[in-house]
Amino acid sequence: MDITVPLHKESDRSQKEDRVSLLKSVWLLHDLPESTTQHFADKSVAKRHEKGRLLFMQGEEAEWFYLIVRGRVKLFHETIEGTEAVIDVRSDGDIFGELCIFDQQRYSHSAEIIETTEYLMIPISLLQYYMDKHKQIAMNMLMKMSRQQQVQSREIEHLNVQNAPQRIGCFLLRLCPDDNLSAPVQLNLPYDKTLIAARLGMKPETFSRALLKLRQDIGIEVSGSIIHIPSTASLTEYTCNHCSQSIKCKE
Amino acid sequence: MDITVPLHKESDRSQKEDRVSLLKSVWLLHDLPESTTQHFADKSVAKRHEKGRLLFMQGEEAEWFYLIVRGRVKLFHETIEGTEAVIDVRSDGDIFGELCIFDQQRYSHSAEIIETTEYLMIPISLLQYYMDKHKQIAMNMLMKMSRQQQVQSREIEHLNVQNAPQRIGCFLLRLCPDDNLSAPVQLNLPYDKTLIAARLGMKPETFSRALLKLRQDIGIEVSGSIIHIPSTASLTEYTCNHCSQSIKCKE
Repeated sequence: MDITVPLHKESDRSQKEDRVSLLKSVWLLHDLPESTTQHFADKSVAKRHEKGRLLFMQGEEAEWFYLIVRGRVKLFHETIEGTEAVIDVRSDGDIFGELCIFDQQRYSHSAEIIETTEYLMIPISLLQYYMDKHKQIAMNMLMKMSRQQQVQSREIEHLNVQNAPQRIGCFLLRLCPDDNLSAPVQLNLPYDKTLIAARLGMKPETFSRALLKLRQDIGIEVSGSIIHIPSTASLTEYTCNHCSQSIKCKE
Repeated sequence: MDITVPLHKESDRSQKEDRVSLLKSVWLLHDLPESTTQHFADKSVAKRHEKGRLLFMQGEEAEWFYLIVRGRVKLFHETIEGTEAVIDVRSDGDIFGELCIFDQQRYSHSAEIIETTEYLMIPISLLQYYMDKHKQIAMNMLMKMSRQQQVQSREIEHLNVQNAPQRIGCFLLRLCPDDNLSAPVQLNLPYDKTLIAARLGMKPETFSRALLKLRQDIGIEVSGSIIHIPSTASLTEYTCNHCSQSIKCKE
């Protein structure tokens, strides 16, 4: 036991250092004093769960917000009739659930793990405490929320003016490297097609038909989760001419 | 001249008082010192323009944000191919253009007057100045933006899971008084049908077909800009069962 305790302490210390450096990189805690980030690290709880784990439900009272260390989480709404609308899919380094501090401490959406995910749970009360103390947190949130508002505006725009193949085109272009527009690109879809369809506001059958159209129109080939794009330049023209943003926007 | 000058000054003073009390009621300036609101009133410029006036274009460098005293303004994006996506329609007491302070002082959308509108132009630099000074402005913005984010999330949800008649139903319910759900309601559409269709992400012909469906399904009658709803309870059931929000949400 004399041997294991120091070893255990050593591993604890290195885990804490990892956690502090991870928290420092999160937009919410940018430019805060070291002691504040350390306090967040001390009070956070690390967890790991498999696909299918429901983290919280829309309307539930909120005690924690979440930081994804590694994995993927689906944020969604469910209608009274039971239809699910996928609001977003978050991954490594993303946080979610923090906005409940402006909504009477209740979650405005549900969250479910969609692949094995390591995450930190951080007390909302701690965020509230430091928000009163450091104006920087409010400024960090404002910067992020104004960007998110633009992303949502673009999403509404696309749902209004783009057809299904164009919306899939936009999704694929965001996964492409920026460097060589004329070279062919091979991609792995980040999550399953049913979820991508839901995220883009399509029924699975619309999604399949749209992929077929993308194959006919610009030769995109799909094999399982692998996508082959012969020319991102053609895909950009096909998609981004039907968008108000500048070409090769990434968010 | 001796007579007109004091009269002119008197009218100036009362106009300024009106302006201060209007600015005080705007969410952005809630709970700020009187002297700050007065400074905003002093520096703002009052204007009035007819339908069709373009206030600013997406991407333009921003010097002002806007407060609508009376009237209506359409906020929109335009794709490279020239299709317009209506992001929002703002009216009395609403502000817009203020978010450019987080986006390198550039407007993220265009704005056009859609009916005779009186408005105030307020310097962005003044907002920036007081934002550094009073944390309250950042807090006011955060409260508003978190609500707007929920409204946009719901809009994305509706575009994903609701059909056209349900989306029109939701739009109409927001115009209905809350008091008596079973009584018939007569409404005046707030702006023309083409714009409502665009705001709801529909082509005009889809909008017309959806109105026909609303007539068949729950007896809604349309005559010009007047809408007769026999029972808001039926319309609520028809629409809100396909939404994740609580019944009779208003925003």
